Amino acid sequence: MTNKNEQQEQQSPAIILVNPQLAENMGTTARAMLNCNLLDLRLVCPRDDWLSDKAISASSGAEIILQNAKRFETTEEAVADLNLIFASTARRRDMIKTVYTPDKAIQIVRSHIANKDRCGILFGPERTGLHNDDIAIADAVIEIPLNPVHTSLNLAQAVLLIGYEWFKSGHNEPEEQFITNGAEIASKDALLNFFNHLETELDNCGYLRLPHKRPRMVRSLRNIFERAKLTDPEVQSLHGVIKDLVTHRHRKIEENTKK
Amino acid sequence: MTNKNEQQEQQSPAIILVNPQLAENMGTTARAMLNCNLLDLRLVCPRDDWLSDKAISASSGAEIILQNAKRFETTEEAVADLNLIFASTARRRDMIKTVYTPDKAIQIVRSHIANKDRCGILFGPERTGLHNDDIAIADAVIEIPLNPVHTSLNLAQAVLLIGYEWFKSGHNEPEEQFITNGAEIASKDALLNFFNHLETELDNCGYLRLPHKRPRMVRSLRNIFERAKLTDPEVQSLHGVIKDLVTHRHRKIEENTKK
Repeated sequence: MTNKNEQQEQQSPAIILVNPQLAENMGTTARAMLNCNLLDLRLVCPRDDWLSDKAISASSGAEIILQNAKRFETTEEAVADLNLIFASTARRRDMIKTVYTPDKAIQIVRSHIANKDRCGILFGPERTGLHNDDIAIADAVIEIPLNPVHTSLNLAQAVLLIGYEWFKSGHNEPEEQFITNGAEIASKDALLNFFNHLETELDNCGYLRLPHKRPRMVRSLRNIFERAKLTDPEVQSLHGVIKDLVTHRHRKIEENTKK
Repeated sequence: MTNKNEQQEQQSPAIILVNPQLAENMGTTARAMLNCNLLDLRLVCPRDDWLSDKAISASSGAEIILQNAKRFETTEEAVADLNLIFASTARRRDMIKTVYTPDKAIQIVRSHIANKDRCGILFGPERTGLHNDDIAIADAVIEIPLNPVHTSLNLAQAVLLIGYEWFKSGHNEPEEQFITNGAEIASKDALLNFFNHLETELDNCGYLRLPHKRPRMVRSLRNIFERAKLTDPEVQSLHGVIKDLVTHRHRKIEENTKK
């Protein structure tokens, strides 16, 4: 790993799988981690080999996470260097703790990391979830809000949802982007020129023949094309569409006249 | 399905899988959908049987979604009754479209559903993603923000992340909850009584022997227990802890005196 990766690893929360059973789940967890730029995987007494072919294949290209994973004998050893730990649980336990949503928990992690604390999130074994002893050493609990009639998530999916909140919180992705693949949005001049072409032909063909209705009809049509946020090449295409529609009409009229 | 389910189904966006290949992925998608209370699954020319044992088993109890899934020959037929469609894509296409984050797209879906529109989200086949022809009939695109070096998500995971935004947007889950399993948070009276017990014993044993340091030491200790947000039973336990520590000390002193 490069220095940059080491730095990133220190700055992102550790994902600690306690007694994970299946190699496949360790692989898919690694995949979800890399999706979300979480690099520090810690395994407490895993049953299967996390470097087996099954695990590597399930990681779909995220084997770097598995190769750099650290194995520990106990949860206590796995969290020893951390300052803040959340326990991810699917059901309420008989325990007095604060329970956070993933996004709120990630906010807290971010503020601790900004304060140079090292954070981690504990996930329990596939069937049973975390043991209460592991939850007891966590600062607080994360519960993922899901349909109460069906909360069962697999391990990698739980890591993915929390990791996704982590990734989102660090990236101010624009909520809305208009992508044009390099084409320029048409200037208003080009657009008005197109409207002029369209309306001239609609006058010629009689579509706009009723003077009292004309202004509203023109506005409606202009609105449609304004909403479409046309690019320059698209305006050119539409000129062609109108031209050919008109030509075709002419041809039809000529044909009809010949008969 | 009950009427209530039908109503819910109409109110939640349809999940439309275009040419899904693997039964297992249809099963895990059903599981992710039920996790997020998405009930309307539509399959366009699926390769495998979505009611096979493999699919049912992968759904982990969400077979109701598979049993109610509808099969269509073409994407056009699958979306015919809908008013608003998003296309979920992993990579930028050579197309002029608006791209939204999942949470923004879900906000738009919510506002359309409030307006009695019916919405759907398209997902493409496992390896190739959606065909550009399918994206062309969508109103806009959803891109899930993920680590650019590793954006590969499996089908069910993509459905899960978007479904999770859907579920969150409909549930005002409290960000932070202090759970006590029915125990009452200790009254300040009970807490001050405990402080009194503790400080009396610390006076007796000499821990608070320096008068000029005493006020600050007392404040520090009180702060620790205030932060812990103790419940009544916990205060009782701590009384016992102090009592037994003191008794043990007495015993030790007695033992030492005997020697």
